[in-house]
Amino acid sequence: MPRKRVVIIGGGFGGLTAAQSLRHTDVVLIDRTNHHLFQPLLYQVATAALSPGDIAWPLRTIFRRYPHVRVVMDEVLSIDRAARFVRLRDSAPIIFDILIVAPGSRHSYFGHDEWEQSAPGLKTLVDAVRLRENMLLAFEEAERRRTTTGTRDGLTFVIVGGGPTGVELAGALAEIGRKAMGPDFPNLCVDDLAILLVEGGSRILPGFDTDLSAKAAAALERMGVTIKLNSPVSDIRADGVTIGSEFVRSTNVIWAAGNRASPLLVSLAVPRDRSDRITVQPDLTIPGDPWIFVIGDAAHCAGPGGNPLPGLAPVAMQQGRYVATLIQKETAPEQRRPFVYADRGMLATIGRAQAVAQIGLVHLSGLVAWLLWCVVHIFFLIGFRNRVRVMSEWMWYYITFKPGARVIYQLPRRPREDERTSQARSAGQK
Amino acid sequence: MPRKRVVIIGGGFGGLTAAQSLRHTDVVLIDRTNHHLFQPLLYQVATAALSPGDIAWPLRTIFRRYPHVRVVMDEVLSIDRAARFVRLRDSAPIIFDILIVAPGSRHSYFGHDEWEQSAPGLKTLVDAVRLRENMLLAFEEAERRRTTTGTRDGLTFVIVGGGPTGVELAGALAEIGRKAMGPDFPNLCVDDLAILLVEGGSRILPGFDTDLSAKAAAALERMGVTIKLNSPVSDIRADGVTIGSEFVRSTNVIWAAGNRASPLLVSLAVPRDRSDRITVQPDLTIPGDPWIFVIGDAAHCAGPGGNPLPGLAPVAMQQGRYVATLIQKETAPEQRRPFVYADRGMLATIGRAQAVAQIGLVHLSGLVAWLLWCVVHIFFLIGFRNRVRVMSEWMWYYITFKPGARVIYQLPRRPREDERTSQARSAGQK
Repeated sequence: MPRKRVVIIGGGFGGLTAAQSLRHTDVVLIDRTNHHLFQPLLYQVATAALSPGDIAWPLRTIFRRYPHVRVVMDEVLSIDRAARFVRLRDSAPIIFDILIVAPGSRHSYFGHDEWEQSAPGLKTLVDAVRLRENMLLAFEEAERRRTTTGTRDGLTFVIVGGGPTGVELAGALAEIGRKAMGPDFPNLCVDDLAILLVEGGSRILPGFDTDLSAKAAAALERMGVTIKLNSPVSDIRADGVTIGSEFVRSTNVIWAAGNRASPLLVSLAVPRDRSDRITVQPDLTIPGDPWIFVIGDAAHCAGPGGNPLPGLAPVAMQQGRYVATLIQKETAPEQRRPFVYADRGMLATIGRAQAVAQIGLVHLSGLVAWLLWCVVHIFFLIGFRNRVRVMSEWMWYYITFKPGARVIYQLPRRPREDERTSQARSAGQK
Repeated sequence: MPRKRVVIIGGGFGGLTAAQSLRHTDVVLIDRTNHHLFQPLLYQVATAALSPGDIAWPLRTIFRRYPHVRVVMDEVLSIDRAARFVRLRDSAPIIFDILIVAPGSRHSYFGHDEWEQSAPGLKTLVDAVRLRENMLLAFEEAERRRTTTGTRDGLTFVIVGGGPTGVELAGALAEIGRKAMGPDFPNLCVDDLAILLVEGGSRILPGFDTDLSAKAAAALERMGVTIKLNSPVSDIRADGVTIGSEFVRSTNVIWAAGNRASPLLVSLAVPRDRSDRITVQPDLTIPGDPWIFVIGDAAHCAGPGGNPLPGLAPVAMQQGRYVATLIQKETAPEQRRPFVYADRGMLATIGRAQAVAQIGLVHLSGLVAWLLWCVVHIFFLIGFRNRVRVMSEWMWYYITFKPGARVIYQLPRRPREDERTSQARSAGQK
C-alpha cells in the first residue's frame, strides 16, 4: 500500500508543530509566505524594538532535515473535499489523503471593513512594518508641525481592544515614545504624547483573573496610558475615532479588537461560528470527515466550561501534536480520545520589568512575571540565531532604550495631516 | 553678530561628517529619510545576509548629543541662491548663510529610463528590500515551475555593470544561491542557477589595477559567475536583456551600471557634467558663490590626473571634514588651500575569504584582503549596536551559510513568469 499523503495548510504554530511531529509520512506543508512567524513578538516589530528577520525563519530551512516534508509557498484558494485535493493560486492542485487545515485568522471589523483603512491591525510582517512606519512618521510629523506652525496639537495614538495585543502595543508605545523617541525630538515633550487604550468590556485582559487585569491597568497608567473601559468604538475615520459619543482626533489608530478565521474555511462547507471558525468534533475533525482536521485559530474547539479555547500559540501547538499522533497511529475515529488542552498558563507583558502571569492558581506580576515572559519567549523562538539576536537586542534596548529598528523605508508617502483631514471631510460630504 | 546658520542637505557620508565636524555652529541637517545609511553594505541587505536595521541608524539619535544640530526629515525641492533659502516639501522654507549640498545620486539608465522597471538598481533600503524579495521569489518560482511542469528553465540572474557594486552583488548571489538556498530547494540543482555579470568595458573593477581585476574575475568564475566583458546592454525588457546582439532570457536583472547626481542640483544654475554632477572649484564651492559647497557623489571634483574623484565614502567624508574646517575658521575664499583627497586605498569583496584591496602600491587579495575588508567596514559602521549585530551576523552566516534575513514580506504580488512574458509581448506589439 502506498504511503498516505498528509497536506497541511498553514505554517503557523499549529501547522508547523504538526509537520514536525509527523515522522515517516509523506507531508506537504503549504504556506502563503516563506517563513514561520513568531507572532507573539510581532508587536515588538511594530514598535521598532526588533527587526522582521529576528522573529521569522524560512520554513524551508526549518525542514531541511525532514526529507519527507515538502514545503510549498503558495496560496490555497479552495479545498475540494469530495475529490480530495486543494486548489492553489500558482501551482497545480495537490491531492491529499489526510488534510490539516491551520490557516489562522485575520482581523474582524465587526461589519465595518472600511475602518481597516484608518485603523490597521497586526497579523503579518507587512502589517508590523507599516505600523512601525506610521508611528515613526507620526513623530516626525508632530515635530515638523511644532517647529513650522508652533501649534501644540499633540500626538495621539488610539489602540482599540484591551486584549493581550492591545495591552502589549500600548505598553511598548508608551515606552518607546517616552524613553526612546523623547530625546530625539527636542521640540516635543512628554505631555504631547497621548496613548489611549479603548476597550468595549469592563476590564482589560479579560482572559486573566480580575486582580491581574487591575495590576496591568495600574502599570499601564503609571506609564502614561489612558484606559477607557466600557467604551465601544462606533466610528473610525481618517481623522479620528468616535468612542461612545466622544470624538477623539487621531491619525494613529491601531486595531486590536477582533478576529475572523480565514475565508478559505468556507469551501469546507461545514458549520462555522460567529468568528467564522469551524466548530470541530472532540477529535478536531470536521463533521462527517474523520481525516480532515482543523486546528489553531481556525478551530472553534470547546474547552472547559464550554467556552471555546483561546487563540494562543500553546493551544495550536498541542492540537498539532495531537493530530499528528492520531495520523501516525492511524487511530480509527471511534477509538480516538478527545483533545484536551493542558493549560500551562498565560502571560502578557507591559514593558520593561512589567508583566502579568497566571499559571493555574499562581498569579505573578512585575519583574518576576516579566523575566518569566522573557525566558518563555526566547525558549520558543525558532532557531538558535533568532534566540541570540532577540536576547541581545532586548539587553541592548532595555539598558539603553535605543531600539534598533527605527528605520523608515520610505514606502509610498502617507498623506499629510491636512490632506487626510480634507479627504475625510470630502468623504463625509458624499 | 548672530551666529551664522549652516544648512546641510543630505545625511550620507559627506553631510553626516560635515555636521559632526561643525562644533558650536548653528547647523540644520535635512534628509529625506530618518536614517544614515551605510551604503557599502547595502548589497548584503539585498542578498538577505543583513537586516535593514543593521546598516541604518536614526540621524536624530546620532545627533542627540549635538545640541547645535537640528535634524529635519523632509525633501528639499529647490535652492534659492539669491534669497538664501531652501524650499521643502512639507515644512516652511529654511534660511541659510552657508549651504553644504550633499544629496548623493540615483541610477542612470543612459537615456533608457524605461529599463528601470525591469532592471532595478540599489541605492536605498527600499531598493534593497525589493531586490531581496525578487531574489527569494525567483527561487520559489523556479522550484514551483520545476515541480509543476517538470521544465528545466533555469534561474538566471543578470547583473549589469562590473564596478564594485556589480561584483559584490554577483559574488553574494553566487554564495547565497549555491550554499544557502541550494539545500532549501530540493528540486533545484546547482547547475540551474546562472549568474551573469555584464560589463561594457574590457575588465571588471576598472578602478583597480589590472592584476586585481583579473584576480576578482577568477574568484567570481570559481564561484560559478559568468563574466561577459565588452558587452554593452542594448535593450532590457520584462523577459530578458539584449547583450550586444544576444538575447538572454531572465526576469531577474539588476542595474549596477551608471549614476546620475540628484536633480536638485539643477536649481543651483551652475554648469554640470555628463552625470549631472556639479563641477566644483578647488575649494568645493560652486562658481561665483564662496559659501555654497557641493560634496560627495553630487560633486565633480578633479583628482590626480584630472579624472574626477570616484563616488566613494572616504572621498565624501574627507570633503565633509574639509568644508567644516573652512566654515569653522571662516577662511576667506582667497586664502583657501584646495581640497586634496588622501587616497587610503580601495577594497572590494567577492565572498567569504575573497576580496581585493589596493592600498597605494600594495595589492592584496584572498583571505587577507577579506579580513581587512571586514575590519574596515565594522569600524566605520555607525553605532556600537550595529557593529556588534553585523559582526555576529557575519560570524553566523559565514559559518553556517544560513543568512538571517530571508524574509518575504508579501509586498504586492509580482506578476508570474507567464504574465510577465505576455505583458512584454503585448508591449512589443504596440
